Amino acid sequence: MDLMAKVISLCKRRGFVFQSSEIYGGLRSFYDYGPLGLELKKNIAQLWWEYMVDHRDDVVGLDSSIIMHPKVWQASGHISNFTDPLVDCKNCQHRFRADKQPKLEPSTDIVWMVKDRASSATYGKKVQGEVAECGYVCPECGCPNLSEPRPFSGLFRTFIGPIDPLAQQENMGMELQEALAKHSAFLRPETAQAMFVQFLNIQKSMAMKVPFGIAQIGKSFRNEIVVEHFIFRSCEFEQMEMEFFCEPGSEEEWMDYWCQQRIVWYRALASQPGDFRLRAHHAGELAHYSDCCYDIEYNYPWGWDELEGIASRGDYDLRCHGEASGAKLQYFDPQKLDPQTGCSGWRYVPKVIEPAAGLTRALLCFLLDAYTEEYADDSDDKVPPVRTFLNLHPALAPYKAAVLPLTKDQSLLDMATTITKQWRREGMKISLDVTRSIGKRYARHDEIGTPFAVTIDHDSMTDHCVTVRERNTKQQTRLSVDKARAMIWEAYRSPWLN
Amino acid sequence: MDLMAKVISLCKRRGFVFQSSEIYGGLRSFYDYGPLGLELKKNIAQLWWEYMVDHRDDVVGLDSSIIMHPKVWQASGHISNFTDPLVDCKNCQHRFRADKQPKLEPSTDIVWMVKDRASSATYGKKVQGEVAECGYVCPECGCPNLSEPRPFSGLFRTFIGPIDPLAQQENMGMELQEALAKHSAFLRPETAQAMFVQFLNIQKSMAMKVPFGIAQIGKSFRNEIVVEHFIFRSCEFEQMEMEFFCEPGSEEEWMDYWCQQRIVWYRALASQPGDFRLRAHHAGELAHYSDCCYDIEYNYPWGWDELEGIASRGDYDLRCHGEASGAKLQYFDPQKLDPQTGCSGWRYVPKVIEPAAGLTRALLCFLLDAYTEEYADDSDDKVPPVRTFLNLHPALAPYKAAVLPLTKDQSLLDMATTITKQWRREGMKISLDVTRSIGKRYARHDEIGTPFAVTIDHDSMTDHCVTVRERNTKQQTRLSVDKARAMIWEAYRSPWLN
Repeated sequence: MDLMAKVISLCKRRGFVFQSSEIYGGLRSFYDYGPLGLELKKNIAQLWWEYMVDHRDDVVGLDSSIIMHPKVWQASGHISNFTDPLVDCKNCQHRFRADKQPKLEPSTDIVWMVKDRASSATYGKKVQGEVAECGYVCPECGCPNLSEPRPFSGLFRTFIGPIDPLAQQENMGMELQEALAKHSAFLRPETAQAMFVQFLNIQKSMAMKVPFGIAQIGKSFRNEIVVEHFIFRSCEFEQMEMEFFCEPGSEEEWMDYWCQQRIVWYRALASQPGDFRLRAHHAGELAHYSDCCYDIEYNYPWGWDELEGIASRGDYDLRCHGEASGAKLQYFDPQKLDPQTGCSGWRYVPKVIEPAAGLTRALLCFLLDAYTEEYADDSDDKVPPVRTFLNLHPALAPYKAAVLPLTKDQSLLDMATTITKQWRREGMKISLDVTRSIGKRYARHDEIGTPFAVTIDHDSMTDHCVTVRERNTKQQTRLSVDKARAMIWEAYRSPWLN
Repeated sequence: MDLMAKVISLCKRRGFVFQSSEIYGGLRSFYDYGPLGLELKKNIAQLWWEYMVDHRDDVVGLDSSIIMHPKVWQASGHISNFTDPLVDCKNCQHRFRADKQPKLEPSTDIVWMVKDRASSATYGKKVQGEVAECGYVCPECGCPNLSEPRPFSGLFRTFIGPIDPLAQQENMGMELQEALAKHSAFLRPETAQAMFVQFLNIQKSMAMKVPFGIAQIGKSFRNEIVVEHFIFRSCEFEQMEMEFFCEPGSEEEWMDYWCQQRIVWYRALASQPGDFRLRAHHAGELAHYSDCCYDIEYNYPWGWDELEGIASRGDYDLRCHGEASGAKLQYFDPQKLDPQTGCSGWRYVPKVIEPAAGLTRALLCFLLDAYTEEYADDSDDKVPPVRTFLNLHPALAPYKAAVLPLTKDQSLLDMATTITKQWRREGMKISLDVTRSIGKRYARHDEIGTPFAVTIDHDSMTDHCVTVRERNTKQQTRLSVDKARAMIWEAYRSPWLN
């Protein structure tokens, strides 16, 4: 079983990630985060927020609605450009993305099977043909008889107000299509646009001075035709985005700064920091409004691939929304000279550096990064591992410690409950785990990444000490309750604070 | 200006809540939470989670997708029952909710104006008529010539996959309506159903024993025709819901327990605890599956109204989803005797107690609860208040303290920065506020509810003391930096931990 399959299996078995609506057969590419997955996700989000917002004076937050005014997506270009080229197969009616097909030499001879249009059942009749000019065939049936590619929107459409394309529409007073268009709205495909749209409200209400940033964590939705790699590319996902507004001319400096900040953040939390890297986009990869872009990539089981994009977006977004809305999305700096006139006071449209990360994607990376198998010394790699554990940074781990009474004796249980209560009051996430053998409890907490297991035995009643087992080394240390607490707190600190 | 208008104004001016997409004219009943609103919202959510999940052994979390399998909403009854009765006016084409209209005596004489169907412009021609059997007229034009009420779904519909009711549909291979139905999905109108649907995955992966609960905080969407009172009833909102699964026969006991838990939670955080109350539903208010329900109500400016519902839902939901999906949504307790057979081992469908709160609604309540105006002693109530402040519990306040260097001297700024950094590292949310006069900075932090303002002056350089101003009393105390820190931490603790 490959790493990806092992992690997906652990996710379901241990309560990290489930398929959405699984009892109904699941919903393709929608996922639920279980008790431990959501704690891991919360920790990633909290560590990002702490690093990007709470510990800084120049970044504030926003939590905008998922359904925004449709004009936002017109101005941003999403309605016209956020599309995939879709092709229909004239043989089996399969619909697919033209840009995801392997390229074939036109005029190559091929054979495919005729299908019944209604049922898509194969007739068994083989047909000969050749690859068309476009250079691809239907990935389902191999037929080269295809429609032209047409752009298909990745936006999820919905309707606000009392209208439904599937309800009876008498008395609408308008043609259905017209009414549907008028009431259309979209689920946001990214959180970023809200930061541009609310630029003035936030700058003014918080009296922010350029350079400053607006950060947001939240769900986004993309009607992906090709979903892949578990939660790597799914239709409903979470983002952590920040728009950093700076003075024209300072973009390069801030781009360097944020690239460094972001890679440091990932590496500080990683078990294998070398699996996270920065890669500059080459000119051909850049969006038309972007003059410079870096990806933070992770070394996934399928190779290096995107985790976060850090883009220099110029003043493209503020200009677009300013023109479309009529709002003056500008900043006035009374202390600077206007470079055009040389006069005191400079009014300009700020430039933007955008570090845009996937929260649910980061969760996948940290799980892959943490997944560790231990084999017996004389193992030939074909036997099952003797131990599996998640080497998660304590700041990421769903539980900071497990408190384990060795037996079910009431006195041990009482002491375990007292310690658990005390530590929880201090803000530690603790699992009080009382059932099954101590070995099985160790194994469970290894698999869910709990960094410390704190065992209470009969001697604890008299010496007020506990045995702390460290997840990675399995090393056991006898410590006073207070020293155990200090040890856990110390490990748990955000790594960039050291 | 009434209290509601004052709070809405403060929300916009100080960065708590903005209208969504405001520069495009706003989107009716969609809101964005600004830098301070989102911190307040996060604090409410965190305090709920701490109380309901983190500090307990018997409740775990879930974070499910917003788009779920459509069969979920069929089984739950939302597709057939989650509707409003809508009526079309045959004069002006206005569409409205029949159940929200004031009742009139049928056959009463009335007069209304004829409108142009296309433009809705008034012709000026007055028409006489009488109120119909239904007992209401169009709330827009007064016309009694209305359609029958038809049920209209409160679910937001969207489409998964390459289909769009507004795109050209050649090559669909199906009639449009049929294809739209097949690809339809809905935004969840509540978070609760996911807890039922994932009951088995969570019970098994976390080895939970009944009684136990599953908690979720997240967005829900309702296509409300009548929205009201700012964020009280809006189309996109956030919920904090918990489903507590218990043994048949124990419902009453758990209902009492959760009612007490929940009212204690609100009152501990409130400035005016008497404005939060429990009210039992009378028989006519109960849903058909519910045997008992309480509301936690708040004394809003428009009177007592709902804030949280605590419902005894029986086994209705698990049974519905079990029957519709074929999954065995049951629990087996090997240590209990089956009451039917008297044999060891009892398999049953757990009963459910559901405390379901509105997060964004709680935010409104805590803002209304905290809003305080101070008048001069000799004021006759017609002059503006001398001071406005938010009397928010320190655990709710967006900032725990403001650090204010008295002047812009570098030495004061350095000391302020050092203290800020130190306190932030310990996890305190601190505002380092360096511009404008000290009076204006006090006023701002009063208005956003910062409980302590910590001023650093020239004496601080030598005596290492700071002046701590308490928000509610304006009382100023000279303290060492360490004592100031301890004072803030102490106030900031979750109130139920005292």
